Amino acid sequence: MVGQLSRDPQVLMAEAVEGSRVALARLLTMVERGGADSEAVAALSYRAPIPYTVGLTGAPGAGKSTLTDRLITTVRTGWPAVAGGEAAPLDQVAVLAIDPSSPFTGGAILGDRVRMQEHATDPTVFIRSMATRGHLGGLSLAVPDAIRTLGAAGMPVVLVETVGVGQMEVDVARATDTTVVVMNPGWGDSMQANKAGLLEIADIFVINKADRPGVKEARRDLEQMLDLSSLGTWRPPIVETVAAKGAGTEDLWEQVALHRAHLERDHLLESQRAGRLDDFLARVVAAMVERQVADLRASDRYSATMADVAAGVIDPYRAAAMLLGDA
Amino acid sequence: MVGQLSRDPQVLMAEAVEGSRVALARLLTMVERGGADSEAVAALSYRAPIPYTVGLTGAPGAGKSTLTDRLITTVRTGWPAVAGGEAAPLDQVAVLAIDPSSPFTGGAILGDRVRMQEHATDPTVFIRSMATRGHLGGLSLAVPDAIRTLGAAGMPVVLVETVGVGQMEVDVARATDTTVVVMNPGWGDSMQANKAGLLEIADIFVINKADRPGVKEARRDLEQMLDLSSLGTWRPPIVETVAAKGAGTEDLWEQVALHRAHLERDHLLESQRAGRLDDFLARVVAAMVERQVADLRASDRYSATMADVAAGVIDPYRAAAMLLGDA
Repeated sequence: MVGQLSRDPQVLMAEAVEGSRVALARLLTMVERGGADSEAVAALSYRAPIPYTVGLTGAPGAGKSTLTDRLITTVRTGWPAVAGGEAAPLDQVAVLAIDPSSPFTGGAILGDRVRMQEHATDPTVFIRSMATRGHLGGLSLAVPDAIRTLGAAGMPVVLVETVGVGQMEVDVARATDTTVVVMNPGWGDSMQANKAGLLEIADIFVINKADRPGVKEARRDLEQMLDLSSLGTWRPPIVETVAAKGAGTEDLWEQVALHRAHLERDHLLESQRAGRLDDFLARVVAAMVERQVADLRASDRYSATMADVAAGVIDPYRAAAMLLGDA
Repeated sequence: MVGQLSRDPQVLMAEAVEGSRVALARLLTMVERGGADSEAVAALSYRAPIPYTVGLTGAPGAGKSTLTDRLITTVRTGWPAVAGGEAAPLDQVAVLAIDPSSPFTGGAILGDRVRMQEHATDPTVFIRSMATRGHLGGLSLAVPDAIRTLGAAGMPVVLVETVGVGQMEVDVARATDTTVVVMNPGWGDSMQANKAGLLEIADIFVINKADRPGVKEARRDLEQMLDLSSLGTWRPPIVETVAAKGAGTEDLWEQVALHRAHLERDHLLESQRAGRLDDFLARVVAAMVERQVADLRASDRYSATMADVAAGVIDPYRAAAMLLGDA
């Protein structure tokens, strides 16, 4: 069946919109691989409505996967009525699991399979892992593309789960509307160095495994950190969960809905998304130029020009201008 | 007189070759400022023989300026006979004093004036300070350009003095044939963190102010550091100087001559310079591309395209390709 699937992004997108998960999966593979197909998918995706996107990040072992799995069930019950708004159903939900450590998705696919079993019978849940492949600019461009693709296929909400490691964490936070930072009791010692970074990206803090000792201390540490910071109009709430037992996900989802209401009330959602798109275009331009320069440097023309420079036939400035087609 | 000076790089270079210091100074101002004039100077400079270039770097207060001043007098006596080679006269010497902290050369010019007095009566000595101005790529491109310009004007040896701070130090070391790292007795405490970086760039170590206590310890520390390193065929010698009294500069100059003989014997000078030029061309290309992208992002065309992206009329990839002229 997969073998008979179209390779035309437009056909695949039409099928994905009609509910074909196989077509959607193929579109995301195209995005992940980059190149012409990926850009064809982007041409279809960037016209479509943008899904509301929730990032979940945190150190390995914090329990993000379990929390995400449990959150899926809660999300499926729809948006709760918060801040004067009305409850709204959500007919489907997508999960992107970002695995920067696995360039060939070996680990990620395994994780997917395990999790797929839990939601395998639910056609309204779509789970997909993503790793770095050939995409121009890496995951920092591939993840926003994937989110847009899911949106174009009709997904109203996307959960993006990533391991909290350095730049990737920031890149994902930059691609999502609400960022949830997941930690555990006793986080203070291990996360000490990263406090400032966490505060910068977190819209909501989750203390997961909250049935363990040290919750009070973790909360106090976080509150102190927040007290010392110059926050905007949103003070990140702290939610306690025990994901393994399914406890606390309703609280978390309600806080996400409150954060969304906050963003929409102050027109922040619009301006943040506009700023992100602006930034995205700049990064696409930079990545394309970088690729052009790399291609140039690998070319015979470059070697020949370098030989002329070495021989004193031409100076480096004139050589560079010629190579770049300006002279 | 300066007012009547030509603005044509070719005319200026001819005058500089005939000994006009004013013409040479103007050429270096052009290099420092960057742009079309600077590239015209480069077109004249990169055909000419390359001067032998000695970098002097070290922490502020190590006594580099005084050491450089005293070294000038020694250099003027010519290359000593070392390693089986013959002594060779040097009819002139140039000094480039790099001052990255002074974007408008205020401090550097003052320093120049003070030093100029010492060598003012000597027409064979040319001293010039350089700061970051408009040059494309900053000092990392301007310094090699200035060295080439001095070479084209007939300078056989250039001393490049710079304050040892981070990237600038590495950039200058990358532009010179022999790098001298100047320190003082008691250096260990203050330089602890930078040991690896020093070792990477140093061809010769100088313990200046060697009439102060702690010389033995400083030497022992350096030797230990060298013992623990994987050196090539050249082990950086350690020279003691008291620059304020003019002591030790002959030793230092002899070690420079020995290092030069080492580089020439093993054809390292040639291959190092070739590698540097290769690296230089790549950096010119990168700097030109960076400038193009910055110009592009500041353009009305970019804003208009971004507006189309925001309106969903066009996707970011197509937009970037259009902006870059590929589509």
